[in-house]
Amino acid sequence: MSRYQLRRDKLRRLMKKSGADGFLVTNFTNVTYLTGFRGDDSFLILLPDGEIVLSDPRYTTQLKEECPGVDLEIRTPGTAMITSIRKVLRRCRCREVGFESNSLTVDLHGALVEGVDDVRWVPCGGLVERLRMVKDRDEIRSIRKAVMLAERAFGTVRSGLRSIDQERIVAHAIENEIRRFGGRGCSFSPIVAVGPRAALPHATVEDIPIGDHGLLLIDWGADSPDGYKSDLTRVLVTGKISPKLKRIYQLVLKAQQRAIEAIRPGAKCADVDAVARKVIADAGFGKYFGHGLGHGIGLDIHEGPRLSAANSEPLKAGMVVTVEPGIYLPGVGGVRIEDDVLVTRGGHEVLTNLPKDWDSAATQLG
Amino acid sequence: MSRYQLRRDKLRRLMKKSGADGFLVTNFTNVTYLTGFRGDDSFLILLPDGEIVLSDPRYTTQLKEECPGVDLEIRTPGTAMITSIRKVLRRCRCREVGFESNSLTVDLHGALVEGVDDVRWVPCGGLVERLRMVKDRDEIRSIRKAVMLAERAFGTVRSGLRSIDQERIVAHAIENEIRRFGGRGCSFSPIVAVGPRAALPHATVEDIPIGDHGLLLIDWGADSPDGYKSDLTRVLVTGKISPKLKRIYQLVLKAQQRAIEAIRPGAKCADVDAVARKVIADAGFGKYFGHGLGHGIGLDIHEGPRLSAANSEPLKAGMVVTVEPGIYLPGVGGVRIEDDVLVTRGGHEVLTNLPKDWDSAATQLG
Repeated sequence: MSRYQLRRDKLRRLMKKSGADGFLVTNFTNVTYLTGFRGDDSFLILLPDGEIVLSDPRYTTQLKEECPGVDLEIRTPGTAMITSIRKVLRRCRCREVGFESNSLTVDLHGALVEGVDDVRWVPCGGLVERLRMVKDRDEIRSIRKAVMLAERAFGTVRSGLRSIDQERIVAHAIENEIRRFGGRGCSFSPIVAVGPRAALPHATVEDIPIGDHGLLLIDWGADSPDGYKSDLTRVLVTGKISPKLKRIYQLVLKAQQRAIEAIRPGAKCADVDAVARKVIADAGFGKYFGHGLGHGIGLDIHEGPRLSAANSEPLKAGMVVTVEPGIYLPGVGGVRIEDDVLVTRGGHEVLTNLPKDWDSAATQLG
Repeated sequence: MSRYQLRRDKLRRLMKKSGADGFLVTNFTNVTYLTGFRGDDSFLILLPDGEIVLSDPRYTTQLKEECPGVDLEIRTPGTAMITSIRKVLRRCRCREVGFESNSLTVDLHGALVEGVDDVRWVPCGGLVERLRMVKDRDEIRSIRKAVMLAERAFGTVRSGLRSIDQERIVAHAIENEIRRFGGRGCSFSPIVAVGPRAALPHATVEDIPIGDHGLLLIDWGADSPDGYKSDLTRVLVTGKISPKLKRIYQLVLKAQQRAIEAIRPGAKCADVDAVARKVIADAGFGKYFGHGLGHGIGLDIHEGPRLSAANSEPLKAGMVVTVEPGIYLPGVGGVRIEDDVLVTRGGHEVLTNLPKDWDSAATQLG
């Protein structure tokens, strides 16, 4: 049985539990997760004893290659998707159909309710995302690959860094190296922020050279050949920095290490977040850590579970999360240290391997 | 008055027309369009006499830089966005608030209705997208820039093509050249498809060398420094191809040219689509043209108006659309030719400049 069949069977069990005899998957990433099809603009209808991908002629050949055995409903140009949905659901005599209320738009939902009115539409938001949170063996292998690609790329770019290199050039170089090593590219636009710009947690890259700012924050990740993501952050010390920034570096590192130690099945996401937050708050920097501790990674760069104060869910073996506390002093600089961590039955495994202790941050520019 | 103020004032007029005294913008690209802020995870509330961006501390500094003068509501970590929305709407005593029903999810809408229940929520789907369809002078300049970047990159990559170059390498080279010329990168993952693979309208790149397949389809575009997109397709003849494929090339070109000639203010989108479709159908290839004729481009790579049989809207001066008919013969090969066209008061202007006649398609490989 293929991994996709296994996933669809798990979803079938959830579907039955919610009382539905059909499930409409409208999120394209979820369609990929459940079928292996990598295109977009296509929906999946899951039935108790089968599944049908609804698409258009642009994808007919690709669908046959990427998800052999899955039934197809290909609409002609000018025919609305809703017409395909109605046709399939009537043919299969579905009565209660689950839909992805967490991603379906209000307008498309309205069109479904109006256009397919012999069906009761049951909101089932987050069902597939819930499955996706716990990774299977294939997925963990793909995330390891994405981590390896990110780390190799970082290694080569770091070893060749020059003080005249601009943020933008460094970001592009990382993507090129990831591709050279076999990845699709970056998993998101890298953040490369020099000096005080490191205080912007989501800085965009500019034409600013590393120069003698002393501090360089890089937040990047790789997209593996089959679409799984990694997400890392390191801060490089490229010159003289203030004792305060050094202290912050060590504080963020301590907060990160303590939080990682707290990761195990059953630990609540909010509690892991609180571990890091307490280390930072106790040192008086609480208000400078203005984001959650981390998030799941997988086919999306941001997915469940969120490690944040608002999420009381427990961690489960097979989840993969980032752990990325930060302290940002406006106008001065910022430090964030981020690793990817797999929740294992016995506790956790840090998937990333780049050194992060204070001494390893020192970087000689060419 | 800034371009963003002008856009917000236009939206205010539409908001008043729909009877609302507030408008919640939840689509991040729409927030960018209306404020200049380039981050994400942030909403905008438009009021009759002001506007407030709702965000979190990661973006405080960036917001102050990118949209000075706009009021901010920054929530603390762990506070839900919905709490910010409620706070702002109560403070401003809004009663009827429009929301983006074409992009807001069913779940978030449910949370709004429940969590902010002293407001009547009015579905106003597509209001901002409607404004975005007609480009202003700044936007047309940015799209011209995106076209220029795409064309220069294509020119250098084409001039250095070797038969051993793989699809993937060509795609990466195009992105690198776009960046070297000053762009952000590609506006989407380029399609580079050799030989029979050109019959897949949305082929993903593989490690297949150009070799002596004879035909190479490249569909690519650039992302300008300020986020505007271009989208082009050319087919290169790199070796011997069958008379049938040559005939198809000339047929697609004729269909495209006829459709472009039909573009002017007032022309219906469906009619422009029909012009190209008729040329192809009359030659007996109708069923091999399985997608719409084109789409708008702007901050998104796909936006309104769609040039398709299903869209009876009239074109307006200031719209920018792709015109991209294609014929795809499974297992044999495919041809698509795509340009970006501005609707002008007097008719149209083709923004793209790359040659496309049959003779210009011939390409010597190194």
